[in-house]
Amino acid sequence: MLRILTAGESHGKGLIGVIEGFPANVKINIEAINRDLARRQQGYGRGGRMKIERDQIEIISGVRGGRTLGSPISFLIPNRDFENWIPFMDPIRENRDDRRVTKPRPGHADLVGAQKYNFDDVRNVLERSSARETAVRVAVGSMAKQLLENFNIEVASHVIGLGGVSSHQSYAPFAVLKKADQSPVRCVNPALETAMIDAIDRAKEMGDSLGGIFEIRITGVPSGLGSYVHWDRKLDAKLAYHLMGVQGIKMVEMGDGLKNSMKQGSEVHDEIFFHPETGYYRKTNHAGGIEGGMSNGEDIVIRCAMKPIPTLYKPLHTVDILTKEEAMASVERSDTCAVPAASIVGEMVAITVIAEELIRKYGGDSIEEMMARWKR
Amino acid sequence: MLRILTAGESHGKGLIGVIEGFPANVKINIEAINRDLARRQQGYGRGGRMKIERDQIEIISGVRGGRTLGSPISFLIPNRDFENWIPFMDPIRENRDDRRVTKPRPGHADLVGAQKYNFDDVRNVLERSSARETAVRVAVGSMAKQLLENFNIEVASHVIGLGGVSSHQSYAPFAVLKKADQSPVRCVNPALETAMIDAIDRAKEMGDSLGGIFEIRITGVPSGLGSYVHWDRKLDAKLAYHLMGVQGIKMVEMGDGLKNSMKQGSEVHDEIFFHPETGYYRKTNHAGGIEGGMSNGEDIVIRCAMKPIPTLYKPLHTVDILTKEEAMASVERSDTCAVPAASIVGEMVAITVIAEELIRKYGGDSIEEMMARWKR
Amino acid sequence: MLRILTAGESHGKGLIGVIEGFPANVKINIEAINRDLARRQQGYGRGGRMKIERDQIEIISGVRGGRTLGSPISFLIPNRDFENWIPFMDPIRENRDDRRVTKPRPGHADLVGAQKYNFDDVRNVLERSSARETAVRVAVGSMAKQLLENFNIEVASHVIGLGGVSSHQSYAPFAVLKKADQSPVRCVNPALETAMIDAIDRAKEMGDSLGGIFEIRITGVPSGLGSYVHWDRKLDAKLAYHLMGVQGIKMVEMGDGLKNSMKQGSEVHDEIFFHPETGYYRKTNHAGGIEGGMSNGEDIVIRCAMKPIPTLYKPLHTVDILTKEEAMASVERSDTCAVPAASIVGEMVAITVIAEELIRKYGGDSIEEMMARWKR
Amino acid sequence: MLRILTAGESHGKGLIGVIEGFPANVKINIEAINRDLARRQQGYGRGGRMKIERDQIEIISGVRGGRTLGSPISFLIPNRDFENWIPFMDPIRENRDDRRVTKPRPGHADLVGAQKYNFDDVRNVLERSSARETAVRVAVGSMAKQLLENFNIEVASHVIGLGGVSSHQSYAPFAVLKKADQSPVRCVNPALETAMIDAIDRAKEMGDSLGGIFEIRITGVPSGLGSYVHWDRKLDAKLAYHLMGVQGIKMVEMGDGLKNSMKQGSEVHDEIFFHPETGYYRKTNHAGGIEGGMSNGEDIVIRCAMKPIPTLYKPLHTVDILTKEEAMASVERSDTCAVPAASIVGEMVAITVIAEELIRKYGGDSIEEMMARWKR
Repeated sequence: MLRILTAGESHGKGLIGVIEGFPANVKINIEAINRDLARRQQGYGRGGRMKIERDQIEIISGVRGGRTLGSPISFLIPNRDFENWIPFMDPIRENRDDRRVTKPRPGHADLVGAQKYNFDDVRNVLERSSARETAVRVAVGSMAKQLLENFNIEVASHVIGLGGVSSHQSYAPFAVLKKADQSPVRCVNPALETAMIDAIDRAKEMGDSLGGIFEIRITGVPSGLGSYVHWDRKLDAKLAYHLMGVQGIKMVEMGDGLKNSMKQGSEVHDEIFFHPETGYYRKTNHAGGIEGGMSNGEDIVIRCAMKPIPTLYKPLHTVDILTKEEAMASVERSDTCAVPAASIVGEMVAITVIAEELIRKYGGDSIEEMMARWKR
Repeated sequence: MLRILTAGESHGKGLIGVIEGFPANVKINIEAINRDLARRQQGYGRGGRMKIERDQIEIISGVRGGRTLGSPISFLIPNRDFENWIPFMDPIRENRDDRRVTKPRPGHADLVGAQKYNFDDVRNVLERSSARETAVRVAVGSMAKQLLENFNIEVASHVIGLGGVSSHQSYAPFAVLKKADQSPVRCVNPALETAMIDAIDRAKEMGDSLGGIFEIRITGVPSGLGSYVHWDRKLDAKLAYHLMGVQGIKMVEMGDGLKNSMKQGSEVHDEIFFHPETGYYRKTNHAGGIEGGMSNGEDIVIRCAMKPIPTLYKPLHTVDILTKEEAMASVERSDTCAVPAASIVGEMVAITVIAEELIRKYGGDSIEEMMARWKR
Repeated sequence: MLRILTAGESHGKGLIGVIEGFPANVKINIEAINRDLARRQQGYGRGGRMKIERDQIEIISGVRGGRTLGSPISFLIPNRDFENWIPFMDPIRENRDDRRVTKPRPGHADLVGAQKYNFDDVRNVLERSSARETAVRVAVGSMAKQLLENFNIEVASHVIGLGGVSSHQSYAPFAVLKKADQSPVRCVNPALETAMIDAIDRAKEMGDSLGGIFEIRITGVPSGLGSYVHWDRKLDAKLAYHLMGVQGIKMVEMGDGLKNSMKQGSEVHDEIFFHPETGYYRKTNHAGGIEGGMSNGEDIVIRCAMKPIPTLYKPLHTVDILTKEEAMASVERSDTCAVPAASIVGEMVAITVIAEELIRKYGGDSIEEMMARWKR
Repeated sequence: MLRILTAGESHGKGLIGVIEGFPANVKINIEAINRDLARRQQGYGRGGRMKIERDQIEIISGVRGGRTLGSPISFLIPNRDFENWIPFMDPIRENRDDRRVTKPRPGHADLVGAQKYNFDDVRNVLERSSARETAVRVAVGSMAKQLLENFNIEVASHVIGLGGVSSHQSYAPFAVLKKADQSPVRCVNPALETAMIDAIDRAKEMGDSLGGIFEIRITGVPSGLGSYVHWDRKLDAKLAYHLMGVQGIKMVEMGDGLKNSMKQGSEVHDEIFFHPETGYYRKTNHAGGIEGGMSNGEDIVIRCAMKPIPTLYKPLHTVDILTKEEAMASVERSDTCAVPAASIVGEMVAITVIAEELIRKYGGDSIEEMMARWKR
């Protein structure tokens, strides 16, 4: 079982991740992790901060000479802007008061977080609730991805809706999806892509923000990950847990879940066929690769809807937590649209779940042991 | 923390549930549990089995003289039809072979389950993967509901889509939703209700099955359940985990998640207001009562889409797992539509999550201790 | 991973156990489980209740035709005396007051339990804190034992100290330990056995109680169970957790832990040798089969000390929880000495830990899969 | 619930710790943590490395302006000697081969670890299995200690046996134990102290190593932490789990567990008394402050036995894992005796368990909330 903890405030020293339970002897390519971190930072519609950050991972433990040790992998993603934030974020010394936030932003953790933890400075909340934390999950997922490449498992994602512009087309082939990074909005349909960019430009002009929908596809997953024997072992339940835990995600759908719910059974279930050489197969994949809570060997398909970013330059009505007076919500530097970035996060989170289940299925003290069992 | 395990095969002796971590001295009303069990068994579109079952809970431990003991609550829901199934399901003696299943049903756990666990009888899978298991989760949820009534927390659900018939209206008031049980399809809109019943009749005639969409509403939840500090503590993530773990559920949406993803930020975030006597409040609830992974005091609103039941009297193409020959999928006795029943399950599963988080927030060795802390 | 919950009050309807994560297709012999349950009920020094009980397991789920299904195994051990206790222990109806307990027994959970859970009847505590609960753990362990027999792993235990009579001899061979059941005090040294029996007779006469020390030995455990990579994955730590969780156990020692702590390093570490055919081996086993938190292939040896039973016919001073007046502690029917019984419980608890770790190492959806991986 | 992960290799960049679930607004004193880290590094009998290290904690997240944020606390303890180890321990670049270890040391994780994780360099094991990791647990415990000081809970420890020199005296008062740091062997009995120092000198001369026994005492613990309702919630079971998980600990004893096991019940149970002003109390504490798996308000007393360090300058017989030839075990720089250091680790590990249970009992989003509940 993988145990993963993330830590770190948005403007603190950096982000920390620890992964316990990762198999030994897996080759780790740091450049590939940094590439995935960069993918998260791109996307049309991001604000200025992305240029400052340029995240780079620094491995602290669990990897030696380019291979995992089986011991906990820990890493730091330093905050390159921390120098400027020391007076406000120093862990130990008293902090200057002039970045204190008292006007909670609707749609964020701000108000409830300050109440729950008894804070009189909303910064104590927003520094942690920020989507900056997803950088850690990308780094974790990137290592999971490198593990899974040994088993010919690949992941891709693409944006299928943004600011009301959306696609009703059927699935693109996996090879096409892998080119989504070439689009500034990670959309593989050129007509939609243009409309999405326009929508972002308009929203930015208005000081407004946009949400959207992205799809994750995972190919090569062996059948039998997850289980029906207890509800909390179902692969789709775990994927929903991890993905709904990503900042801004408010809907998770497996396969054609929503569309299927409006159809008849005879239209939506994927009939079973058998080929003497390659074994069981399906001609359709409405289920999105999961039946009875288990992978069935077909591509896993997941769709997530993300709400518009709640930090608006055109601020929302709120209440000052100290004076209780009416106010306009604080504006931290923000993006217009983070759906392309979120799609990368979703990809990485989903692949982490698959890695965890693969480890459960094959044991997994070392990659050699896992591969020997997989080949059988 | 609540720890819950469920056990039991569909045609076995019965279903077992164990709940560890439930506070002491909570009054338990058995009739109320049996009523919730009965609610799960109703609904237009169910097949013949529902009449046989008439589930009744038998408490084995953890309750004495009508109050919980703080010790693990365990219970049995006997299978009233077990006598007839002994020759095929006896735990110990060898079983007769004539209820063996070798033709896996598409859309079920059948095929992958048999491969994963190395079975040559699909019955070993379907007995456990069956939605019969949800009876346990209803019983658990019914006890959670009784706990939460002490804190003025209430839950309701209603069907908003069925067989393609669906509603676009805005939320009904909570008082209206509580009347959903009076509708055979649990729909509070009379026009839709009629159309849904028609759809079921047509599907039944065709030997087909239907899915649908239901909404869960929870009112009275104090703000601050869940947390933003780590992704897996987010209340929406936990709700998605539990609900996607219900048989047939393939989409989970928090508040207006899907609709919001197509709008602009200024339209969807719930602005914050303050009343000197009652405190913070909102005029809208697009977020569905959860911000930053925490309850914000507004009604929690969740929508789930359920796929059509995969067992069809008009059977689907499949392959015999022994002979590998083409076949038509086995037909166990089945329902045409289980969306009304699933809405009850969803209600009970969601309220269990709320109970767990309330216990986490208030400690919870005894109900008296929890209530004293809640009142402060 | 195994997830296990136990439930049940001492004089309630019965005890319930649920095991989630047990592999499929393991042959389960009910008679063997009942034999282990009977072993727990024997032993010189037990009171009258043991004759009433004669525990018999009733499997509710997870086993079909004598083989496990991979789904949660649940079982009931009915309380044969429940009829007589209904007026006092009925889950639902109000109970008669005349078995209420208000004089907490020192050394038991009575006083603190009643405070913690806000009870005015100590019976609410003692019914659950009673060692009767260990019957469930014996049943679980007996199934674990049956799983492990496929891997040639065997467990035994024997009493090495009782009422101050104790052995300083070196280990007996495993074959001798397996005969411990033939001794009424489970001691394989005839001279000590006689002295132990005498000690029990004397204590019984005095209305007093005795504790003691037992040793658990597990043979055939493959090397590499547990791990050094994180403290909570260490095999010895897990064994200590489970064993210190057995009623009355107050010391757990791995191998010659206590004796070794007084010696020099050169005397206690087990030097490593290699045989071209059989591989690495040791000539000594001071470590008790665990190094660096992992099994090393040698016999696992654990010693546990049990305190004397706190329920005395010669009662201890206490305070009535209602009146706060001085009192003598309540006397429930009790044993003089339960060390032989505890040694069986220890055996079963330890073997359960080994089974859990074996499943972690080999995956473990089915016994066939586990054995194929073990043979490599 | 606290979730804690530790990471880091002995000669790597440093050690990482993450604590999730720590309450907000707790004052953190960095100097106090560094003092506890220094306490671990002292003690007569340590080798040369302790002088190099001088551990200092660097908080990365979860603390701002000297107070906790409720978000995960992460920290780094840099390895001051890492510069010299880069050629051998670099996470990414290929490492030089000349610190490779192929001669596993008996008594360490070396041999089994290399087999389990499929390594041909034992360094991959020993870097993580090293007791260096305990520095993280000391830092974690030091923060737990600072939390608990708000509740008047204090911890102390002292060495009661070392190299065969041991004490049979009854407990020293808590105030005396707090002076244990003034002794180079952390023994508060001057006569024993001298004998222990002599024993270390002799062992060092011989190239041998020593183990010993230490006692942990925790005072001020409110009654009712832990629970009897399920075995794995027992406070003594949890303490045993954590403490047996400390490198070298091979026996854990609660209160007078071992001695009690040889006595009669009437001699060992702590009778209950009541004082109208201060409530229930005991005149004895043979149980070591825990009854029925719960704290009873008396001092918690735990004893641990540590084996002699297995790395000997007078090396043990072993086998080269590559050539399978007979060899003498590798000698890394090592200590003669680490019992005084281990007693500090034990103290910190035990107090962490108490903190976790206190958080469970009182909820614990913020220190203010916890204290208000504690005061009631």
